[in-house]
Amino acid sequence: MTFTAPLIADIHDAQRAAQLQQVWNQKTKPTGSLGQLEALGQQIGLIQQTHKPELLHPQLLVFAGDHGLAARGVSAYPSDVTWQMVDNFLAGDAAVSVLARQHGLALQVVDAGVAHEFKPRAALIDRKVALGTQDASAAPAMTGAQCEQALQSGCEVVSSLPGNAVLLGEMGIGNTSSAALLMSRLTGEPLTACMGRGTGLDDVGLQRKQQVLKAVLQRHASATEPLQALAALGGFEIAMMVGACLQAASERRVVLVDGFIAGAAVLVAANIQPNVLGYCVFAHCSAEQGHRLMLDHLARFTASAWALNRVGPLLNLGLRLGEGSGAALAWPLVRSAVCLLREMASFESAGVSNKGED
Amino acid sequence: MTFTAPLIADIHDAQRAAQLQQVWNQKTKPTGSLGQLEALGQQIGLIQQTHKPELLHPQLLVFAGDHGLAARGVSAYPSDVTWQMVDNFLAGDAAVSVLARQHGLALQVVDAGVAHEFKPRAALIDRKVALGTQDASAAPAMTGAQCEQALQSGCEVVSSLPGNAVLLGEMGIGNTSSAALLMSRLTGEPLTACMGRGTGLDDVGLQRKQQVLKAVLQRHASATEPLQALAALGGFEIAMMVGACLQAASERRVVLVDGFIAGAAVLVAANIQPNVLGYCVFAHCSAEQGHRLMLDHLARFTASAWALNRVGPLLNLGLRLGEGSGAALAWPLVRSAVCLLREMASFESAGVSNKGED
Repeated sequence: MTFTAPLIADIHDAQRAAQLQQVWNQKTKPTGSLGQLEALGQQIGLIQQTHKPELLHPQLLVFAGDHGLAARGVSAYPSDVTWQMVDNFLAGDAAVSVLARQHGLALQVVDAGVAHEFKPRAALIDRKVALGTQDASAAPAMTGAQCEQALQSGCEVVSSLPGNAVLLGEMGIGNTSSAALLMSRLTGEPLTACMGRGTGLDDVGLQRKQQVLKAVLQRHASATEPLQALAALGGFEIAMMVGACLQAASERRVVLVDGFIAGAAVLVAANIQPNVLGYCVFAHCSAEQGHRLMLDHLARFTASAWALNRVGPLLNLGLRLGEGSGAALAWPLVRSAVCLLREMASFESAGVSNKGED
Repeated sequence: MTFTAPLIADIHDAQRAAQLQQVWNQKTKPTGSLGQLEALGQQIGLIQQTHKPELLHPQLLVFAGDHGLAARGVSAYPSDVTWQMVDNFLAGDAAVSVLARQHGLALQVVDAGVAHEFKPRAALIDRKVALGTQDASAAPAMTGAQCEQALQSGCEVVSSLPGNAVLLGEMGIGNTSSAALLMSRLTGEPLTACMGRGTGLDDVGLQRKQQVLKAVLQRHASATEPLQALAALGGFEIAMMVGACLQAASERRVVLVDGFIAGAAVLVAANIQPNVLGYCVFAHCSAEQGHRLMLDHLARFTASAWALNRVGPLLNLGLRLGEGSGAALAWPLVRSAVCLLREMASFESAGVSNKGED
């Protein structure tokens, strides 16, 4: 594979971090009383290299793709639901559509590789690599060339967008399987710790999923490098999110990461370029088993994951829907951190007595 | 005291609850995948007695009052900060002002008993009972008549508001002390489990606060009934919030409760009328020590606190600012629950295959 990840600067800058902390400390509130929102404001200030950050034209991207592995019964839903849900997103009737409307987020769906021919439509970006990946239990999910194409498309989609913030979501029946496989391969955690019920498998389905995924991992035992693993385990939408978050970080955009599957893309990206983590805000901790542990692993990239360690996932509401819905729900909190940093008065400007100044 | 709490209906209605669950289950998403937001949507549907709830003209009320006890050094800030912050709220420069602007919330400050004479101003509601409470270490914080006046004013302020949702916040140097005292008295928990650093006491200050509060509790050992305790321990802004949430619930408004101090008001209200809890949504779990335990105690009103038990506090971001800032931050999540319930398509209307229908 010839994919070259874009260069990503380390956001950390001790002087600016101290300056941002100072700005917070002068605001009319007890020191530290805005909790994790203060760390979040600091992170965004470091990303934008200013103590007056602002968020412009946020773009919510839902990457959609199908998975050959879905034929093995790893999901509670049939593959057709992928394209049906894409239609639903575009019609404005899905959860993420409702939330995007509520928050004024520009929503676009990227067809990364759905097993369905869409007619051209507004808000649908055609980057289809193929009509779904191969069944990873029988072959690599994608060829090296396909993986590269997906990564490159992810970069190009983001670089063509306005604004300085990207929200990453996804849709793809079977994609908690790819995410769990990637997580197990890249972290060394046993598969059972990385996989869950996805859209709602029962106990029998969960056992079947576990057997199938175990065989897939064994089949691709030699795919240990991050991009090799990505190609072997899939899927197109995950690969495109890897490219998208690398590109967004290289352009100093804020990346709001949805749940377990978007998180797996960030995990791959961080294994290529750890600095990407400085640009990532994690919207929530999902109810999908494996997500908490995934976040813990991301936090171990200590030099670059200091923001994750201080900000944490913003929400913990038992969500497990995907689609970017968690990112959309967390978006107002990201905006709040920036609005508070920009707009709150200081003790001095407001004429409020500070601690100990009676 | 002759205060008669307004009648509050139990929101629970098994048939409507089942109907609301059914509406969620038909939405285009895996069953239960919106987590606590589904329980929240159900709660609001029960409050409004419809499966198409809507939130109209949300009102953010910040009740402000001063505390005689502050003279005993129980806060890191001087009492003057109360009126200075009221000015700051009204000028649009405080955290809660920024957040209210971000979310289009009508913000009003209620002067429940600030030790300062304000000139009449837009968005300042004058319900001043007195220029601060008495020092509770030397006398009851308020007389029975003052307590009754505060409760009644809280009711009247809410009944004069438009809309069907109220967000409760507060400002008052020293009021984590009253909140901790009320919590200890009404739950039987030891003072040390109920009190924290408030706006940021150091270790010496914390020890002083503990000694002062212990003496206050002993002095008012006979004030065991909820309203007796409220009068003895203060403060005006807490009493007014007790009235406000009782009135709001009696009118079937949604009550979004901010942090530790607003929570103490709800604790008093629940001890009078447990049904009030059905109308309360808890915005966040504060970093102030005692809040987690307070929420646990509220959750033990099992019949009426089922919503709290299923929805939980919405945010957990280490906030400890008060002012209604946590309520304002959580507001978009409350709106989301309602928007999703109203606007998402069903599997049938969207033509999406449901689980097991291949």
